[in-house]
Amino acid sequence: MKIGILGSGNVAQTIGEKLLSLGHEVMVSSRDMRKEKTMWGDKKLPSAADWVRMMRDNGFKASGGSFSEAARFGETILNCTSGLATLEVIDGAGRDNFKGKVLVDIANPLDFSKGSPPSVAFCGEESLGERVQKALPDAKVVKTLNTVNAMVMVDPSLVKGDHDMFVAGNDAGSREWVSETLLKKWFGWKSVVDLGDLTAARATESYLPLWLKVMNATGTPHFNLKIVR
Amino acid sequence: MKIGILGSGNVAQTIGEKLLSLGHEVMVSSRDMRKEKTMWGDKKLPSAADWVRMMRDNGFKASGGSFSEAARFGETILNCTSGLATLEVIDGAGRDNFKGKVLVDIANPLDFSKGSPPSVAFCGEESLGERVQKALPDAKVVKTLNTVNAMVMVDPSLVKGDHDMFVAGNDAGSREWVSETLLKKWFGWKSVVDLGDLTAARATESYLPLWLKVMNATGTPHFNLKIVR
Repeated sequence: MKIGILGSGNVAQTIGEKLLSLGHEVMVSSRDMRKEKTMWGDKKLPSAADWVRMMRDNGFKASGGSFSEAARFGETILNCTSGLATLEVIDGAGRDNFKGKVLVDIANPLDFSKGSPPSVAFCGEESLGERVQKALPDAKVVKTLNTVNAMVMVDPSLVKGDHDMFVAGNDAGSREWVSETLLKKWFGWKSVVDLGDLTAARATESYLPLWLKVMNATGTPHFNLKIVR
Repeated sequence: MKIGILGSGNVAQTIGEKLLSLGHEVMVSSRDMRKEKTMWGDKKLPSAADWVRMMRDNGFKASGGSFSEAARFGETILNCTSGLATLEVIDGAGRDNFKGKVLVDIANPLDFSKGSPPSVAFCGEESLGERVQKALPDAKVVKTLNTVNAMVMVDPSLVKGDHDMFVAGNDAGSREWVSETLLKKWFGWKSVVDLGDLTAARATESYLPLWLKVMNATGTPHFNLKIVR
């Protein structure tokens, strides 16, 4: 499948490589393909251009482009931008390029402008996921994967034992496709909890402050939640 | 131990009965001891006065009073008020009555004024737990139990398998007492995750929207989280 990725940072590179390794065609996107990336903790990432070159050297079908080119390219589109940048990125990516497509929204609108712990932008209002859906009414937005570290997203076996991923979206068929194909078949998730419509994006985005505190308490980003009954 | 409970609703009655059954003396508190209580789902609860009478008929050391009487009575104080009412209740309960005592803050500042799903009041700002601490600088505020249903708070075995409770507070000794004595010894919790200082109350309070969506998805309030690594 042709997959367009909005963004080219840590989440985009991690998910992109996983999808490429499964044989898919992936286009990542950036405002500046040559800019070197920095992660939290000052870990350096390759620029989008360098990453594409490395992937192609591995024989993978990788490419890079503008946000609108990636959106046009993808039969499915993944939003891997920083949450505070997402709405501007989508605004410039051409609404028609998303028409009828599943848009998997992985972004978290974390606001570090007042220091740490960060706050969740839009809390008490419509979530980022709902805003993306409103900006792209002809897309089928599914919020998922935003509750775990990038490496766990594509390799849930990094976390030992049973644990759960959440999906939320207004279109039941798209939630089903994301659950059964993207999450279970491609990424290896065993348990997906369907939270219903996109108002649940408020819930999973609001979980991030707890994720950060648990990461501090446990000393690893490779953890996840199991809903126990 | 003498335990003062701010509030007399569902959480206050559930925790109060558990503490009484363990032999403790409990004073619940209310603006109006005779007012009949209503829970979500229109379940009726006894008034504070009726509840005290029932408990005393069982041979338990229960009493009722004003907020300031309950705070003065308690060697330890539990905040079981509705989160949006907490700061006003504390303001009227007499700052000196909390001096040097552990105040266990169980309240969630859920705001249903804009409909469902509710928003978390104070999100993006200081949490309710931090505000309580600021209003009562001589108390030792520990935030806990606010991430589960009232029945699960005092009987974690209602949820099968391993699952976790969180504590947060600025005083390490108080977090330790709450973890080891209140949660493990008295209520039967097996696993308590120490999230550190009270800024973590932002994290556990912000989790409530996810709790509500998971309750809808699973069809039961008797669930909890296990942090899996």
